Amino acid sequence: MRIPELADIQAACSRIKPFVHHTPVLKSKQLNGIFGCELFFKCENFQKVGAFKFRGATNAVLSLNPDEKERGVVTHSSGNHAAALALAAGMNGIKAYIVMPENAPVVKKNAVAGYGAEITFCKPTLQAREDTTRIIMERTGATLVHPYDNFNVICGQGTAALELLEECADLDIVVAPVGGGGLMSGTSIYVKAINKDIKVYGAEPLNANDAYVSFNSGILTKSVSPDTIADGLLTSLSDLTFSIIRKNVDQILTAKESSIIECMLLVWERMKIIIEPSSATVLSVVKENPELFRNRKTGLIISGGNVDFRKLPF
Amino acid sequence: MRIPELADIQAACSRIKPFVHHTPVLKSKQLNGIFGCELFFKCENFQKVGAFKFRGATNAVLSLNPDEKERGVVTHSSGNHAAALALAAGMNGIKAYIVMPENAPVVKKNAVAGYGAEITFCKPTLQAREDTTRIIMERTGATLVHPYDNFNVICGQGTAALELLEECADLDIVVAPVGGGGLMSGTSIYVKAINKDIKVYGAEPLNANDAYVSFNSGILTKSVSPDTIADGLLTSLSDLTFSIIRKNVDQILTAKESSIIECMLLVWERMKIIIEPSSATVLSVVKENPELFRNRKTGLIISGGNVDFRKLPF
Repeated sequence: MRIPELADIQAACSRIKPFVHHTPVLKSKQLNGIFGCELFFKCENFQKVGAFKFRGATNAVLSLNPDEKERGVVTHSSGNHAAALALAAGMNGIKAYIVMPENAPVVKKNAVAGYGAEITFCKPTLQAREDTTRIIMERTGATLVHPYDNFNVICGQGTAALELLEECADLDIVVAPVGGGGLMSGTSIYVKAINKDIKVYGAEPLNANDAYVSFNSGILTKSVSPDTIADGLLTSLSDLTFSIIRKNVDQILTAKESSIIECMLLVWERMKIIIEPSSATVLSVVKENPELFRNRKTGLIISGGNVDFRKLPF
Repeated sequence: MRIPELADIQAACSRIKPFVHHTPVLKSKQLNGIFGCELFFKCENFQKVGAFKFRGATNAVLSLNPDEKERGVVTHSSGNHAAALALAAGMNGIKAYIVMPENAPVVKKNAVAGYGAEITFCKPTLQAREDTTRIIMERTGATLVHPYDNFNVICGQGTAALELLEECADLDIVVAPVGGGGLMSGTSIYVKAINKDIKVYGAEPLNANDAYVSFNSGILTKSVSPDTIADGLLTSLSDLTFSIIRKNVDQILTAKESSIIECMLLVWERMKIIIEPSSATVLSVVKENPELFRNRKTGLIISGGNVDFRKLPF
């Protein structure tokens, strides 16, 4: 598959600009004091559907040719990508088919249905999801939009870093969370193309550390039974995202569950904004590696703010 | 006591500007759709110490003469006003004496101490608080800064509405929460002086409805055992705030506990910002009185974002 370049991310930015929120970059003197560095929070929790995923989904939808637009898009997901693709397609008059496990939370089913997508339920196994998706593709001719193993999705996710660097040109470090690697790929391609002296770190839960293992061994390794509160980061890298990350990321840093929870609470209490556990992972690696960040201007990609308030860890 | 006027609030704004955050006014298309009106959230949850109280405390401290500054300030409070006065005094090199009930939450004691204030603990009764405060005043000559029954505090609280109307000049309605009435007084004086056609409503928990009863009977009536999740609104009006509110507020609207909780959750989920229950009261009265707000441009003063996340109602 073709590897995205700087110009592809810049083109994605122009393409999606009328549809996405230009999210704010927030600062906190209190957190700067606690962590001994200057932090810049790129707040994708304020993005539409509450997550950066809307950028990639919108770019994928707008990149379809007229025939493809006519036939629609399909994906299997129970998370933010499903909602993002449903909304992005709906806003552009394109049909979206979403395959969800039948045990997905009602609130997520309702969100996706509310955006006008056609939901097909299946058994909660990867095999069932993939089979169901293939049947829909054969029936409708819809284009598969994978949540991260997709050129246009990666380009769209890179636009958050583009906006961050446009607003804060003199960063020393940029940190993004790593799940399947779509956001990390887009972020690292953009940042290194603009300024190779900016360090790019990935933040990953210690309990779902497939990117850490893959990066350091050089061999793509999948997570086995990952178990973390950062539920957006359970997925493993693909060949595409692994190859991009190996080339453009300086280091993958891991975060303990206790510091993810602590950092999430800290942001809620001090900054008065809702971030999801996956987003707290980026602050956690700052906390766990003070020597890497001391006095450095550090941009943190806050991936989203979709939290189940009835299941808080504190 | 002298009644604040427009010019006093304008002077307060100039005075405190270098010390306070100019907080953002946020909008939400989703909430506009749900409530059928256009809402403008003046976000004092992003103010220093997480509440509008920092405005009034700062204005009170900066309005002292040199002799008074030398002797310091004193108040009795276990809430946001104590933290606000401690920080406002500390930032200006002025001594703050805070009387707190000995059973105040540890987190609040630590916050006040962290701002450099001298804490005196007392029994958790109003009598003990007032006696202890008087003893400190006699010993130190410190100036009492009451949380709401105070000219300079009311002027400072009115500056949130000033900023809101500077940003959104064509509002039809402004709603503020009512506890002791300091924020409501400053808000209503400012709004009516700028444009008497803008409706000014107070939002009060039904379970602490002293302002509603006082306003409608014309007789100042104190709450008896108020019991509401909106813990910033337990206090009753004073003679001063009651007289201002009678003159400048169009109506006091009450909110049920269930809608306060529902509206707090709605703002957290849809806007990804933390607001405290007292702040949710203003959205609750919009929810409970749709006919008053339909299609109206409505400014909501969001009082603060200090929440105990270990005691959530959902």
